[in-house]
Amino acid sequence: MQFAERLNNVETSAIRELFKLLGKPGIISFAGGFPDSALFDVDGIRAASERALTEEPGAALQYGATEGYQPLREQLAGFMAGKGVTDVAPSDFLVTTGSQQALDLLGKTMLGPGDKVIVEGPTFLATIQCFRLYGAEVISAPVDDQGVNTEALEKLIAEHKPKMVYLIPTFGNPSGATLTLARRKKVLELAVKYQTLVVEDDPYGDLYFGEAPPPSLLALSAQVPGSRAWLAHCGSLSKVLSPGLRIGWLVAPEALRERAVMCKQFSDANTSTFAQATAAQYLKAGHMPATLAQVRKVYAERAQAMGDALRKELGDAITFVAPQGGLFLWVKLTGARGQLQDANVFAQRAIAKGVAFVPGTPFFAQNPDNATLRLSFATADVAKIQEGVARLGQALAA
Amino acid sequence: MQFAERLNNVETSAIRELFKLLGKPGIISFAGGFPDSALFDVDGIRAASERALTEEPGAALQYGATEGYQPLREQLAGFMAGKGVTDVAPSDFLVTTGSQQALDLLGKTMLGPGDKVIVEGPTFLATIQCFRLYGAEVISAPVDDQGVNTEALEKLIAEHKPKMVYLIPTFGNPSGATLTLARRKKVLELAVKYQTLVVEDDPYGDLYFGEAPPPSLLALSAQVPGSRAWLAHCGSLSKVLSPGLRIGWLVAPEALRERAVMCKQFSDANTSTFAQATAAQYLKAGHMPATLAQVRKVYAERAQAMGDALRKELGDAITFVAPQGGLFLWVKLTGARGQLQDANVFAQRAIAKGVAFVPGTPFFAQNPDNATLRLSFATADVAKIQEGVARLGQALAA
Repeated sequence: MQFAERLNNVETSAIRELFKLLGKPGIISFAGGFPDSALFDVDGIRAASERALTEEPGAALQYGATEGYQPLREQLAGFMAGKGVTDVAPSDFLVTTGSQQALDLLGKTMLGPGDKVIVEGPTFLATIQCFRLYGAEVISAPVDDQGVNTEALEKLIAEHKPKMVYLIPTFGNPSGATLTLARRKKVLELAVKYQTLVVEDDPYGDLYFGEAPPPSLLALSAQVPGSRAWLAHCGSLSKVLSPGLRIGWLVAPEALRERAVMCKQFSDANTSTFAQATAAQYLKAGHMPATLAQVRKVYAERAQAMGDALRKELGDAITFVAPQGGLFLWVKLTGARGQLQDANVFAQRAIAKGVAFVPGTPFFAQNPDNATLRLSFATADVAKIQEGVARLGQALAA
Repeated sequence: MQFAERLNNVETSAIRELFKLLGKPGIISFAGGFPDSALFDVDGIRAASERALTEEPGAALQYGATEGYQPLREQLAGFMAGKGVTDVAPSDFLVTTGSQQALDLLGKTMLGPGDKVIVEGPTFLATIQCFRLYGAEVISAPVDDQGVNTEALEKLIAEHKPKMVYLIPTFGNPSGATLTLARRKKVLELAVKYQTLVVEDDPYGDLYFGEAPPPSLLALSAQVPGSRAWLAHCGSLSKVLSPGLRIGWLVAPEALRERAVMCKQFSDANTSTFAQATAAQYLKAGHMPATLAQVRKVYAERAQAMGDALRKELGDAITFVAPQGGLFLWVKLTGARGQLQDANVFAQRAIAKGVAFVPGTPFFAQNPDNATLRLSFATADVAKIQEGVARLGQALAA
């Protein structure tokens, strides 16, 4: 059978091989990109689903508008207003099947062979593959502990004239980095100056441990004239409530949103109205603030525990910036005193010692830094984190 | 903003304009492609959802395998075995976000610019647009009351060497036609002879009114050596249980299925595990036979009522074949005695009289027959059907 040429643009075997190893008994995994199932508000979701099926069974079980279920769009507008986005109406939202679908629709709507996209190096690996499947060339802009380097970004935009710039400005995956306020404004100015679409992917912004992060690009765009016309924002309930609902959303300029709706019509017709009605009832019930407080508290403890353990067990073999939110800790092997500096080799040794993580390599669209690795502190409790990091120490010494 | 070129391949305005008119108060609609919400087994689905959240809350609310939730794949294998497909294992299923996503993944996996697909003329209009979005040229094969004409199909395959042949063999949308057993075997033989992928879309096969239709191509493929390697089968719970769950599936040769899984990973990661776990519990509880018996009975009555009313109210102005299943009645305006023969004009007049349907034109990828129209008998009750068809009679006479 002869498959479409676009399949030649992607390579997923490295990650697949790694994930196969995770089934090994007794493995402590820092590899996933998941929230912790134990933190799901099962009772709240059950009650929301019950209300959806009692109050609006026909709508909750029928086909729905491709744009999204109106009561959910209204709740999402309220949810975003609580985060400083006060000028976005329910009709500005396209509800997507997880924010992964928002990325896919952006690809389908915007990208063809020969088009270029600039992403952070490193970035979410499914974004790289998603855009490559539409034929795009994916270019990396450098990231430091303040997020993407906007000077380097401007040079790359001027040079490559990309169709899109894709950023995870807050608690980036995998970098953990958060773009500073000054750089956020600069990014919006670049969007206007170069008439380039900026895509803000923001699944982690609610998961802050201390102070709230700077406002999202979407919130800030009100202060940068013209920038809203060049900004798309992807959000998700996956990391804060439940990935299993598959509820994400896209806020984008009207012409883009309308075309994304058309593409979605032929992608999956609409996101599960059953899940949408459940999510709408959950938000309407006012549960989110308590749910967010709980997950922030638990992930903050785990992030702290992982940072402490890493300093203790791996010492000068690594550097990292303590995360202020999100799910991930991004580590760089220093190679100090001749210690191991290849994270791919380290990952194999770690598996042998009973602990798993994802090496940094596949998160780079270009020029991978093989000394990097991503640790998730989200799904193991503090004791498991300490044990797992101790095993990392043993693997490094092996 | 400059959008992707693929968007130039689709045209959706005709249908959109029509659907806008449906909001008019008092309209009786035969236009939808929906099942009737009043028939949904809300209590059964509520109980299934409750069990999913009680027995397996972590899995039901977490990310899941892209291939699908294993307990649902097992239930689907059992469901298909009940329909004569006894040699398909749970691992052969890819669960999709409605069968629309199965079509989208087939497009993404198989089709690029310049590729050709043969479909029935007429066929499901979202399929035409879905495949065109991947750049394919969509070619129509003629359909009669026994389904696609296999002699004409063979000539088209030989001439165009298509990447796929897409068929709705049972109670086709919009034709209502069902492919005969002899033609089914011929289609499978053509797949092998020309090494061409045949896609069987089967959302309606369970909705038969009298005798069961011939076995699906998937069931029959066991009798045609080599044909399984060239057959993809799309199924769905949308028309028989609930579209709002967005549960569909794809059964396809391993190399194709694996690539479709990869494409799905970057399309929406996985279908809502909440909806999948609910569907799995529903099937496991053994509710489907009673649910199917109920919807078959109601749709049979409505199909009968619509056929009777059409004969009475429109007489020799139309011809149609009484449907034996599905949701649709496909009508052709005869133009007898100088009566109206343009269904697009008829649709406008009908709206003015308070009744809506979809003219046949957009269901044709090529050479539209403007004398055709599709009536859904699924969502209006018998009294509304009689009133609506009487209005059609008035519109015709107007």
